[in-house]
Amino acid sequence: MPSRVVARRTVLRLRDGQARPCSDQLAAEEPLEIRVNGEAVSVTMRTPGDDFDLALGFCLTEGILASPDDVATIRYCATRPGPYTGQFNVVDLETRAGQPVAAALKRNVYTASSCGLCGTASIAAVRKRAPSVADDPVRVDAATLLALPARLREAQALFERTGGLHAAALFTAGGELRILREDVGRHNAVDKVIGWAAANRALPLCGHVLMVSGRVAFEIAQKALIARIPMIAAVSAPSSLAVELAEEAGMTLAGFVRGASLNLYAGAGRVLLPQGPPPA
Amino acid sequence: MPSRVVARRTVLRLRDGQARPCSDQLAAEEPLEIRVNGEAVSVTMRTPGDDFDLALGFCLTEGILASPDDVATIRYCATRPGPYTGQFNVVDLETRAGQPVAAALKRNVYTASSCGLCGTASIAAVRKRAPSVADDPVRVDAATLLALPARLREAQALFERTGGLHAAALFTAGGELRILREDVGRHNAVDKVIGWAAANRALPLCGHVLMVSGRVAFEIAQKALIARIPMIAAVSAPSSLAVELAEEAGMTLAGFVRGASLNLYAGAGRVLLPQGPPPA
Repeated sequence: MPSRVVARRTVLRLRDGQARPCSDQLAAEEPLEIRVNGEAVSVTMRTPGDDFDLALGFCLTEGILASPDDVATIRYCATRPGPYTGQFNVVDLETRAGQPVAAALKRNVYTASSCGLCGTASIAAVRKRAPSVADDPVRVDAATLLALPARLREAQALFERTGGLHAAALFTAGGELRILREDVGRHNAVDKVIGWAAANRALPLCGHVLMVSGRVAFEIAQKALIARIPMIAAVSAPSSLAVELAEEAGMTLAGFVRGASLNLYAGAGRVLLPQGPPPA
Repeated sequence: MPSRVVARRTVLRLRDGQARPCSDQLAAEEPLEIRVNGEAVSVTMRTPGDDFDLALGFCLTEGILASPDDVATIRYCATRPGPYTGQFNVVDLETRAGQPVAAALKRNVYTASSCGLCGTASIAAVRKRAPSVADDPVRVDAATLLALPARLREAQALFERTGGLHAAALFTAGGELRILREDVGRHNAVDKVIGWAAANRALPLCGHVLMVSGRVAFEIAQKALIARIPMIAAVSAPSSLAVELAEEAGMTLAGFVRGASLNLYAGAGRVLLPQGPPPA
């Protein structure tokens, strides 16, 4: 069985004006549905592995269970495999008879998901709801992409002061900044950008590039897709599921955009690469 | 009105063997409850500001609303102020008559919270459920704290390969590594550590230090507190709410632990600082 913790992929690496395919390793990301006595209480995007610890720790730290002694058994559920589900993505904790969990469950279900987690229901929904952006004809010069991180940093008023914020910014294909938002939650920064576009009647965001200051997890790619953004550029790595979604939906995904290099994980055709060797 | 985006605090900064109080700026973090037609659909931890954009963007990207045209008005709700709630932490989107949102709401409420978001209910719950750890008598040498990031990196088998994972590790007060876990979600890495401890009958984690590879948001401090961990050390910045929780709960919180320096945001009494100037 291949590793479920690291996903190996071929990426197009642009470095010092030269583009060549390289093998790269991505952090694997898969949804885990946590059930208590058969009832789903959470779906979180996680790195596969230590799933029983994750389910147990989650139930304790979220107050669903008061003590590890309340748990009788933890097991994987046999589920019908789907595109994102499988035998090892659903864990059920069975409590000892008489342990009260219902009230806590109710509280937890009430506090709804934004992201960092999303359900298989939500994964299925994005695939249904958001059509492919493969037909977006935008093209972007590699040099323009490489210039975005510096423009992002320049525009970040807060980051320098607190060192604690994620940034998301919307650029035109020519590299012009349209809007930048920062937040303690990277998903919030993206929602603020897309909400700004919605409020300013700028949706759909065809032909635009979303630049984020950190990593690209599935939820970021999902949100961009729903806003019809065809390209994502990130300072850090994408997750495996973000790359899968980008490929399926015809999005361009660039990661590790730093200095004179970047990696293209999907949709490389939209990036105009430099011709020949760079000037000496 | 003071800024709600940046919170100013006095921290004890340890640098090159010298400890002195400094003024520091933290990213402000406050919960935002998003309602649609008066019904709560999500509570997310966010940086205050652009709240209407955030609410609108969230509802669109999570599929609760199909189009910005579905929204009639967006407004702050007048709520009774509490320790973490206030006039500007609840936003209600009212849809135009006849816009169907109920089914989508139901789906969303089903996908329950783990974190990155947590409800005011959850905030209230942690304060009730988790007693203070102020009476934990553990003391840790500053030199031991400063050595933790290197030990964390050494122990990270995956990070070097993918560049896309958060790490959380549990250390003894003497700096000995007990367990390290990595995940695409930082909250998951912490839940895996605490779940491991639970499965190995090691709870409560009195006298231990939780080290995380990135930032410390409220949810991380909350999870540590429930496991009775008295000290948190982080490579990056804490949020304002994480510091507030640490202060209230008697936790020690060290941030920007890098090289020969660190900042103490709360519970500095547990850290044994070097005496006098360092050897020349």
